[in-house]
Formats: sequence, C-alpha cells, structure tokens
Amino acid sequence: MKRTQTWARENFAHLETLFHNANGYLGVRNAPEEGAAPGVDSVRGAYLNAFYEIRDVRYGEKLYGFPETQQVMVNVPDAQTVTLEAEGERFSLFDDSVGERLQTLDMAAGQTVRSCVWHTARGDLRVEVRRMASFARRELFLMRYCVTSEGYRGAIRLTAVLDADVRNHAAANDPRVAAEPLRCLRVDAVGLEGDTAYALATTLRSNLTLCCRVAQTCDWLPMHVHTATSAETAFTGALQPGERIELTQYACYADSRRTADPAGETLARLAECREMGAERLEAEQAAYLETFWRDARVEIDGDPACQQAMDFNLYELLQSTGTDGYSNVAAKGLSGEGYEGHTFWDSEIYVLPFFLWTRPDAARDMLRYRCETLERARANARSLGFARGALYPWRTIDGDECSAYFPAGTAQYHIDGDIAFAFVQYWDATGDLAFMAECGAEVLVETARFWLELGHMAEDGFRIDCVTGPDEYTCLVNNNFYTNAVAQNNLRGAVRALRSLTEAGLDRTVREATGVTDIEAEAFALAAERMYFPRDERNGISPQDDSFLQKKTLDLRAIPRDHFPLLLHYHPLFLYRHQVCKQADTVLAQLLFPDTADADTVRRSYDFYGRVTTHDSSLSLCVYAMMAARLGLSGQAAELFGDTVALDLNDTHGNTRDGLHTANLGGAYLCMLRGFAGLRLDESGLSLAPMLPAGWRGYAFTLCYRGCRFRCRVDGAGANLTWLTGADARVRLNGRWINLTGGDAGASGS
Amino acid sequence: MKRTQTWARENFAHLETLFHNANGYLGVRNAPEEGAAPGVDSVRGAYLNAFYEIRDVRYGEKLYGFPETQQVMVNVPDAQTVTLEAEGERFSLFDDSVGERLQTLDMAAGQTVRSCVWHTARGDLRVEVRRMASFARRELFLMRYCVTSEGYRGAIRLTAVLDADVRNHAAANDPRVAAEPLRCLRVDAVGLEGDTAYALATTLRSNLTLCCRVAQTCDWLPMHVHTATSAETAFTGALQPGERIELTQYACYADSRRTADPAGETLARLAECREMGAERLEAEQAAYLETFWRDARVEIDGDPACQQAMDFNLYELLQSTGTDGYSNVAAKGLSGEGYEGHTFWDSEIYVLPFFLWTRPDAARDMLRYRCETLERARANARSLGFARGALYPWRTIDGDECSAYFPAGTAQYHIDGDIAFAFVQYWDATGDLAFMAECGAEVLVETARFWLELGHMAEDGFRIDCVTGPDEYTCLVNNNFYTNAVAQNNLRGAVRALRSLTEAGLDRTVREATGVTDIEAEAFALAAERMYFPRDERNGISPQDDSFLQKKTLDLRAIPRDHFPLLLHYHPLFLYRHQVCKQADTVLAQLLFPDTADADTVRRSYDFYGRVTTHDSSLSLCVYAMMAARLGLSGQAAELFGDTVALDLNDTHGNTRDGLHTANLGGAYLCMLRGFAGLRLDESGLSLAPMLPAGWRGYAFTLCYRGCRFRCRVDGAGANLTWLTGADARVRLNGRWINLTGGDAGASGS
Repeated sequence: MKRTQTWARENFAHLETLFHNANGYLGVRNAPEEGAAPGVDSVRGAYLNAFYEIRDVRYGEKLYGFPETQQVMVNVPDAQTVTLEAEGERFSLFDDSVGERLQTLDMAAGQTVRSCVWHTARGDLRVEVRRMASFARRELFLMRYCVTSEGYRGAIRLTAVLDADVRNHAAANDPRVAAEPLRCLRVDAVGLEGDTAYALATTLRSNLTLCCRVAQTCDWLPMHVHTATSAETAFTGALQPGERIELTQYACYADSRRTADPAGETLARLAECREMGAERLEAEQAAYLETFWRDARVEIDGDPACQQAMDFNLYELLQSTGTDGYSNVAAKGLSGEGYEGHTFWDSEIYVLPFFLWTRPDAARDMLRYRCETLERARANARSLGFARGALYPWRTIDGDECSAYFPAGTAQYHIDGDIAFAFVQYWDATGDLAFMAECGAEVLVETARFWLELGHMAEDGFRIDCVTGPDEYTCLVNNNFYTNAVAQNNLRGAVRALRSLTEAGLDRTVREATGVTDIEAEAFALAAERMYFPRDERNGISPQDDSFLQKKTLDLRAIPRDHFPLLLHYHPLFLYRHQVCKQADTVLAQLLFPDTADADTVRRSYDFYGRVTTHDSSLSLCVYAMMAARLGLSGQAAELFGDTVALDLNDTHGNTRDGLHTANLGGAYLCMLRGFAGLRLDESGLSLAPMLPAGWRGYAFTLCYRGCRFRCRVDGAGANLTWLTGADARVRLNGRWINLTGGDAGASGS
Repeated sequence: MKRTQTWARENFAHLETLFHNANGYLGVRNAPEEGAAPGVDSVRGAYLNAFYEIRDVRYGEKLYGFPETQQVMVNVPDAQTVTLEAEGERFSLFDDSVGERLQTLDMAAGQTVRSCVWHTARGDLRVEVRRMASFARRELFLMRYCVTSEGYRGAIRLTAVLDADVRNHAAANDPRVAAEPLRCLRVDAVGLEGDTAYALATTLRSNLTLCCRVAQTCDWLPMHVHTATSAETAFTGALQPGERIELTQYACYADSRRTADPAGETLARLAECREMGAERLEAEQAAYLETFWRDARVEIDGDPACQQAMDFNLYELLQSTGTDGYSNVAAKGLSGEGYEGHTFWDSEIYVLPFFLWTRPDAARDMLRYRCETLERARANARSLGFARGALYPWRTIDGDECSAYFPAGTAQYHIDGDIAFAFVQYWDATGDLAFMAECGAEVLVETARFWLELGHMAEDGFRIDCVTGPDEYTCLVNNNFYTNAVAQNNLRGAVRALRSLTEAGLDRTVREATGVTDIEAEAFALAAERMYFPRDERNGISPQDDSFLQKKTLDLRAIPRDHFPLLLHYHPLFLYRHQVCKQADTVLAQLLFPDTADADTVRRSYDFYGRVTTHDSSLSLCVYAMMAARLGLSGQAAELFGDTVALDLNDTHGNTRDGLHTANLGGAYLCMLRGFAGLRLDESGLSLAPMLPAGWRGYAFTLCYRGCRFRCRVDGAGANLTWLTGADARVRLNGRWINLTGGDAGASGS
C-alpha cells in the first residue's frame, strides 16, 4: 500500500497536496523542509480543522442579506522547516546536485518518506525525511530528518525552525481560491520553555488562540535562538562515511476551540509523545491503520492501478475528515486552502457514506456538526426572510453563510435536503433511533419546515421556485428536479422520524425543541406527496428544471479545449442561458432517488445530460460512473470510474495544488457501492445488486449495517456475502433476502 | 416661476439637491457657502458631466467577465466657499442668530437666491447670495455674495476659497449610493495667475485633467494666500447701517475631455465672463430661459401646485442633461453622487422624449453619445460571449460596463432595445434620415444583431432566455414581456432603417460599417415577426415572463410600512421568488408598444400589476400614471401624476439628498404627452388622443414635430392644435388627420 513518485520544480505544489500529512484535525502540506527555491510552485501550509479567521467580504454592489464577513481556514505556524548545511553548502530538494529523488506515501504505516542523495563537494549525503500526522494523537505532527554520509566527510548543521510569521495564500482570478493574501494571526508569544519552543498566536478577528510547541531529539547538542515570531534550534556536528545523524521533531498543536489552555495542553501532550518516542508512535500509527484498512479497504482484482488509486482515495478521506463535533470535512480537507476550508454539501452526499458504511460512529460525529450548527441555520433562514425553519449555509466553517455569490451559493437550498438525506441514511443504516431522538429529528423537522416556507402549493403540485440545483451553470430556476427530489425526501424523512419517535415514546425532545404538531407533520406529508416535478413528453427525459430544455443549445464540441472549465472563460449569463451543465444534477437525483423516474427515462436522461455536461465540477464524473454501472454499461462505468479514482493523482482539474477534491474521493468509494454493487438503502432496508465493470476480475468490500459487519465479494461467478462480526442482519441481494449471522456464514447470488 | 423654501439643519442636504445650479456640463450643489455646521446633513459637491475617475470593483467571489473597474463621477474642486466674519463673529446659516431664512429658485432667471438676516451683537446684517450655472457659457459658475448692513456697524471680512482637497462621498449600506469614500484627484497645482486663482488636478487612474479658475470683484482690496491644495482671497472693510458690500465670484471649469489645455481655456473664458460682468451674464441667462420656456413649458390650468412642480421638473431636466457628445444624463443628473454619476436606460426611455419634443437637436446630441460609445458596446458583447452585435452597458459614464451586480445590471439587456427605441422615435419625430445614415442605422443593426445572438428560434417562436426586465425584483427569467417587446421593435427598426436608407441611396455607411446583408435583414424581420410572448389564458393578462404568474404570491399589505423599499429589507432571493414588482415592466411595454396587447388585456394587466408593484423604483409611478390616463381613469391618473411630479420636491423616496431622480423628472413630462395627451408616434405618424385629468380645467404644451412647432391646448371642450412656427405637418387628433400649416391655424377635436 505504497505510492512513490519523484518530484520536480514544476509539479511540486501538486505533490505537496498528494503527500500531505493529516489526521482529521491537523494537516501539513508536504512542503520542502528547507523552504521553496525560487521558481518552485509551493504552497507551504499547515491547518487545524475548523480553526478559522473572519474577514470582510467586499461587494461592488452590496444588497440586503449578503454576508458581510466570511470564515477562512487559517494557515497556522509552520513546524516543518528544517535546513541542512554541509560545510557552507545549503541543501535544496531542487538543486541539480540532488539525485535519486523518491517520495513515498506508505498508507499502511501512515507516513510519508522523502529520500534523495545530495552530491556535495565533499562527498554524498543521503537525506531521508519521515513525516506523519498521528491518528491516535491528533495534536501530533512527527518528523524524522535523517542524514547519512555515503562518502561525505565534514561538518553538518541541522536547524529546526518554528515560524509563526505565516499568512494565507491567494489567487487573484480563480473564484475557487481565496482572492487575497490574508494575515490571520497575531503572534502573542514565541519562546522557550524547558527544552521546548512554542508559538502562541491569536486570530485577529475570530479571537481563537492556538499553540504550536516543538521539541527535538538529536545526538548533537542544541543551540536555541528565537525572535518575536520564530524559534530556531540548531544542531552542529560532523559526519564521516557510514555515519548518520537524525533530528526527530515532535510538534504538538492545540487550539482554544478544543481546550481552555492551548499552551498547557501542548506541553502535556508533547511530554507524552516524547515519552513514547518516535518508534512507538509509529507503531501506534500502523496499528491504527491496520484496523482502518480491515474495515474499509476495497479490493479490486485485475486492475492494480485502480487498486492503488482507490487505497489513496480512502486514505485521504480518513486524513481529511474531522469527527470531533467542531469540525467536518472541508472541500479540500486539510490539504490546501482552496475554497478557504469551507464545508459544502460534499460532506453529506459524497464523503459521509464512506464513514457510514465503514465507521458509522464517525458518520454520526459528522452529523453532530450539523446538529451543533442548527441554531445558526435557523438564524440564516430568518435573515433570508423565512419566518420558520432552518437553512444551512451553502459554505461555512462554523455555521455562518460564507458564500459571497448567492446565485451559485445560498440559492442552492438543496443543502438542507442533502443534510436531511444523510441523517435519514444514517438512521436507516444504523437503526440509531436514540441519535434521531437526541437531535436528528430536530434537524429533519426544521429543514422540512424550510421547504414549506420556500415552496408553495399550486394546482399542479408543490412548486419550489427560484433555486439553484447542484448544476452551477444553471442558476435561479424554478422546480429544479434534484432540489424537489431532496425536498420530498426531507419532508418524508421528517414525517417518518416523528412517527417512529412517537411510537417509541422518544418524541419529547423534538417536540419541545421545535413545537412541531401533527397538523404540521400532515402538511409535510402533503407537500411531499404532491411534490411537483417537471415533465417532458417529447424527449422522455426528466427535465433539470422548468425551462432547461427550452434554452438555447450549445455545441460543446465547437468550444476550444483550452476554454474549459467554462466558468473560467465565459460570463455566468452566457452559461445560464444555454443548455449546458457543469455537473450531474438530474442524474444524481435519479441515482439517489430511484423512484423518481422509470428505467427508460433514467437511461435517456443519462444519455441526454451526458452530452450537455462538461464535468467542470469534480463532483460530476463519479455520478455518471455510478449511473453507468446502474444501467449496466460496464465499459463506460469502468472508464468513468478510472477517471474518477485518479482525478487528484492525475491532477485532471489542474488545481490539486490547492488541495484534494474530497467529494470526488468519496465519490470514488460511492462508485463501488452505489455504482458497481448496486447498493440501495431506504426504509425497506439494504439491498445490493452487484455488477462487474469491464476488465475487472472481481472486487470486495466490507460493510457495517445495523451492527453487522459483513464482506461482499463479487466476481464473474456472482456475488458472495460473508458475515464477519457483530449483530445478525438481513439484506437483499439481487432481490432475494439473505440472512447474515455468525452461524450461517454467507450466501451468494448474481 | 419661482419656488421658495426655508432651510433647517435636518432637510439641508435635500435642499442642496433641489436648489443645485447646473447647466448640463457643470453642477454645483447648493451647500452652505461657509461650510456645514456640525450635525447638518450636507453633501458638498460640484461635478462636471462625464468627468470620471476609475476605481477597482471588489467581489467576494469574482466570476469571469465581471467588470474589474468602475467609472465614478468626480467631486471636483470646490468654488462655492465664502466665509463671512463680523468683528470676530463667524456667520453660519444654521445659527440661532439667523432669521428670515428664504431660499428661492427662480426658473425664469435661472438663478437661486439665498437670503437671511444675521442678528450680530453689533446689529443686523442682511446676507443674500445669488448663484447660477450659465446655460450660455457652460464653464461658468457665478456667485454674488452680498452683505447689507441693517443696523450693523463694524468690520467685515469676506473670504472666498477655492479648495481642491475634495473627495467623493459615500454610504456604506445603500446599494444605490457608492460604497466607499474615494479620493479621485491628484492636485497638480494651486496658484495665482494675475488676479485669478486656479487649481489644476488630475484623476489618479483615468488620467483626466481639469482646471478650476476663479476671480472675484469687490470694492474692498483683496488679500491672496494659497496652500498646496487651496487658494483664499480675503476682502476686509467696514459697514455702516444702510451700506452694502458685494463679492462677485466668477468660477470657470474646463477639462481635458473637452479641451487640450484646461488651464488656458479657463483663463480665456474667465476673461470673457469678467468682461461681460455679472449683470449682463444674468441677462444672457434670462434670455436663454425665455426661449427654453417658450418651447418647453407645460401649462396646467387649475392646479397651481402641479404647475409649479412641473416647471421644476422641466427646469431640472434642462440642468441635468449633457448634449456635447461626451456626456448624457446621469441617473441623478449633476445634482448628487447617487448611482455614481452613471447613465442608465433612464436617458432614452424617460428623459430623451422631453428634448425630442421640445429641442430635437438636443435629443440627437444625446443619441450621439450612444453612437460614440458603440465600439465599446461591441467589445462589451464580445466579453460576454456574443460573437456578433453590440450590447450597451447597463450603467456607465464613458461606455464601459460599470454594473457590479449582473442579475439586476448586465442582464438587463433591454438597454439595447431602449436605445434602439429612442433612435427610431427620434427618426419618426424628425424625419432626420441623414442622422440615421450617419450613425443611427449602425446602432440599430448592431443591437438587432445582438438579439439574434441572445435569443433563439424555437417551435413556439423566437425566445429570449435568462434576462432581467425593468423590474429588478424579478431577475434572470425567460421571455420577459418588456424585453421581447423592445427586441421586436429593435429588429423592426433595423429593417426599416436599412430599407429607407437603401431607397434613399444612403445605405453605404451602415453597410460598410456593419457588413449587414439583405439575408441578415431578413433574419431580423423573421425574429421580429415570430417574437414569442408569454400568454396567460386564465387571468387574461400579459405575463411579465414565462414563470412570473406561477410564483408564490406576496401579501404586500402584510409588510410593515418601514420595510419599504423592500430591497433594503429583503434578500434578493426572497424578492425573486415572489410575485412582486419593484416597478412597471409589462405595463411599460404595453404603454410604449400598444399593439402588444388588446385593450381588455391592457386594462386587466394594469389592475393586476398595480396590486403587486411597490414602486420602490422611481421609474414606476409615472408609468402607471400614464397608463391610468390611457385607460381613461382620470381620477387615478391625476393622483398618480400628482405623486410623480412632486417626487423629488416631497422627497418621497427619502434619498433626494443623493440627487434628483431624473427619470422621474422626464416621466412627469411623459405623463402629459403619452399619458394625458395620448401621444403615440410610430411609422404611421404622430397621433394625439387627449383626456383631461380629474380636477384640472385644462392644459397646454408645445411640440416640435418634423420641423413644425405647434401648440396643443386641452380643456373641457376638447383639444385644439395651433401651428406656431416652422414646416407644415400632419397629425392625427382623436383619429382624424389635421393639417398644421402657417396659413391654416388650428383645428380642434375631443
């Protein structure tokens, strides 16, 4: 489970992302330890999940209700700087004198390793750097910088630097990245305490404090020095051929969102880590990952490249996702500053299923983040003129709307339905009625209320006007198919939850918190029942909205290749008036809600929307891959999946330097489940209807369903389910009910 | 023709607007000469039409094609400052010691006069200040500051200040005013040259230079002093009871858009003005206005308040409008900084008709501004992804798009149709085919082309999707009724112009400039012929767009009064999804293009849209007034007209402090013509069908039609047309053709 690459000046920022070290709380891009040489594309950064600064949003024309401020994930003090000097020469990863460049991600060890040979004037030195962000100790970033003489004789100096003079990066003309460089932190103190160096800093406006504290071990004697914003520790000695020296640095981060005393917290945690020592910490990391892979690994038989890419995707999902209630998963995880560290619907629709089926407790913790921010969602709805209900922000860190362009932001009300969908899926997959009683039902009721406020009952049904669906090339339309579908599901989910909780005598909390009545629940049910969906007799497809099919067509083949993604080359008005889609919209609705259209309509819709969709969004390809699998198009499914799973590795979108596309990472996993395995989950239970993509011999994955962990193995002969641990369960395989129990191990079908 | 008011601290900025002095080139707000006392709402400013600075536009999320810069009308050096000191006491308009406060606008003299008595400790002084911006000499702002002792004995000092340290004003949270204070000018030099003081300044980014030069005459000896940014001239003497002293200041402005040497230009012009002397300059002004009123005055018999308000509106139209080809009329004219000095469709649809019917050459000069900026309109269309045609900017000073919010800006493509409408109306009213040959037809062809690019031919007709009509509470919709109507008229106008020019052998310029072919003209004709208009069988009204009538209704009576205008209290998404209109939209289309709907549909539409329209835009009320007149609702028409004509005088919108609503000024005039007089002008000629609003005894106005100036007088007995000067003409009165000739004077009908 390793992935190895060589680096160069040109692709370095891309590799900084791919090889970043993170653990759901702390993320460190794999920047050059010694700093980037001139001309190297480097985005040096470290981040703490949901540790944010506030900044003003400026508008040329500010209308009522536009957010005045925005939250931004902070680039925190840098603890990855180590410089190496050998008799006056200074080491750089990019120097011509550096050879045998190899960078490795070891997904079983949970480490990255960078190694190379430096041909100095006085002989060769091998440089090897091992890094990890500990999954067992979320505060810890561990770095082992090792220099071995392979012929070199002479003096060596290793200097570890803790630098608090950091700021966020910027990209002026790409709406997907923050527009301006931003200083977020005031450095409160930098100093030495015992043999640790620390930096204490507070965000200028959000008033959050963090501490980063480092300590090094090395056989040579340290020399400390510090300025107002940085602390350095230098180790000087000499190496002879065959000798090696290692600088081990323990860096611990803590912040005031999680602890009252970040400085004290880092002191205690750092002491524990040093007490453990690097080897035991690495062993702890490997043990953590052994469990992870046991429960989560997807095996692909017959396509080693896909296997490696799939491993990468799942590993990155683990690295990216916060499960402490304060945080969630940002669009770029903890791997970069793209989308400013904001959480979108990507969380619930694309990422959460991976955790739901492999570590349901983590999925619940992701949902808890939405419970924690429900009050802000209520306030958000009020500020937008809704008398009742809650509207989750389109993009946020801490619960406030951070979208500065509402047509492709706040108008994507489907976020409410997406979140509701995840709550209902969690409930159906786990049977965890207690969580629904505690806060899940409250979220369902408040979001259901929102739809009643937003839409209205007309003669032809319950209509929802002036919304933007997932497809951001078609904004502010009436009756977006996807939106109406998730709204319907949301309303039904609220009704179901209220009924179930009432039957179980667990409805008190939700009734007290929301004041929901049976009459209101009936209104939910009626709106769901009479939900209006646009129809199209002529083409026999599901129209994306009321007017999409009446718009001017656009010949995508006539557009030059370098004009994609279209959003960087065409004014939104151009895109909005044409039949062109950035991403899956109706097809996603038909995938998540198979009952919204018959098989022929789904097939024709897949063909039609495939022709008008550019996949300029990274949330699109996986959906088409899944639908291709559903439709039995095994060749197309395999091809689309191959493109999906390698999207970040191949830098298909050209911006992985700004961070991973976490939705696509989760989308690749969903391809296996909702796509190839034909997974479907609703009130009636879990069903699988597996198919085999072209070119594969087989595949296997483990699911956790209602306390039962079982393995599904698919090959040319059919599908096989094997109970592994936990409770008994019943699932449908190709329409037949299968009992999964400890005694009766397995059943098969095709 | 005088209007008199007293001032107070609270209403002063409002009065600064109402009593501002302007002449289409130069505008000076009527600020307190001595500077505003603390707590006084004052927006001190002077402006040169189309003299602009460039500033960056900032966006929270900047998408492709959003304007990166904006043009802003510059607050130019201040030449209205005069301070008065009497033995150590300093005069202030707002002091309790000041009585008999009277401020007068004399619309026959073309002057404002401010007078009061200052009760000093040493006796009374009468202060009288006369100001004018000369219509005959556009560079001149003349001020006569006169102090008469009515008991006072002692020393007096009068100090005139030229201050170049000025900046633009700001309002943080009102989208109708600029968001940030802005320094636009670098002061190149302030100094004395002979007995003139001057300031030379250049805009920081647009690199435009202006000079303001002043000279004073006074019986007392001057004392000059100047700093880097200001020049002062003080006159000191003594007054005894019955004595008076006058400081006359000539201030001349010139700018590098109009002359290569602004400093030299002001020197020459100032010399001419001083040679003339104040009395002769005032006489020249009065003579100019005598001609103006002869041709333009609307007489209202039976409603003196309306008469005075109407005089005010027409006078302000004259003050506001630039006719030098560089400039046009800004939304606030030259009276304030609201809408940043930008020109909108207000020019062509609301203001231009006044000039068209009273001074057609001025109307032609307004249109020339659009000819001059056609090339930029072509570039604007390209930047928005249109392969051919020209799209005029929604708001601009010099031709570049300055809208920073495209849903209620650039998406208002109807601006093209509005401009085309004005060209065709000008042509029909004047028969000036030479102007059409010179540049009018080129504008019509390029705008017609734009519609072909924007729309597309579908089964049910030529559709135009994703546009915003005049109603800014309903954005990005399909087939806006008004837009499709002006597009149809635009396309037809282009076809007509090409045909007429070809027949006259004058088509060479337009063909060479545009490359238009007969085949393309046929495409124009076909798109016009098959233009799609939304229909509504149920209510029998013209739907504002494809989906307006399907949206959620909004009970306007349930909204608190202090929540109007809605745009300042509701998010655009709230407004966009409801059946609510900011302003006339479909009703305006039915008014300008009577053939788009039958009489019953028009009547029902008027009733329907009247119920859902808030008139939060000042462009709305006059349209309803006109339509009420058309429909013969003489009571409603009189009431709506009364509200229209007094909108700025009464400060109905609460923001006249930021400038006059020039569209409404023109709208009030249109109420007389298109409303009460039932004026209609098209290819078939001019027709009138007058009615008498409730409560009036009669009214009269003069029209200039195809070189014939004639007077129309309406009273209870009917209507009477009287040839005055110029060519013969034929017009229809109540359906009957009337010949207007020098010999056969008059005819009547009712």
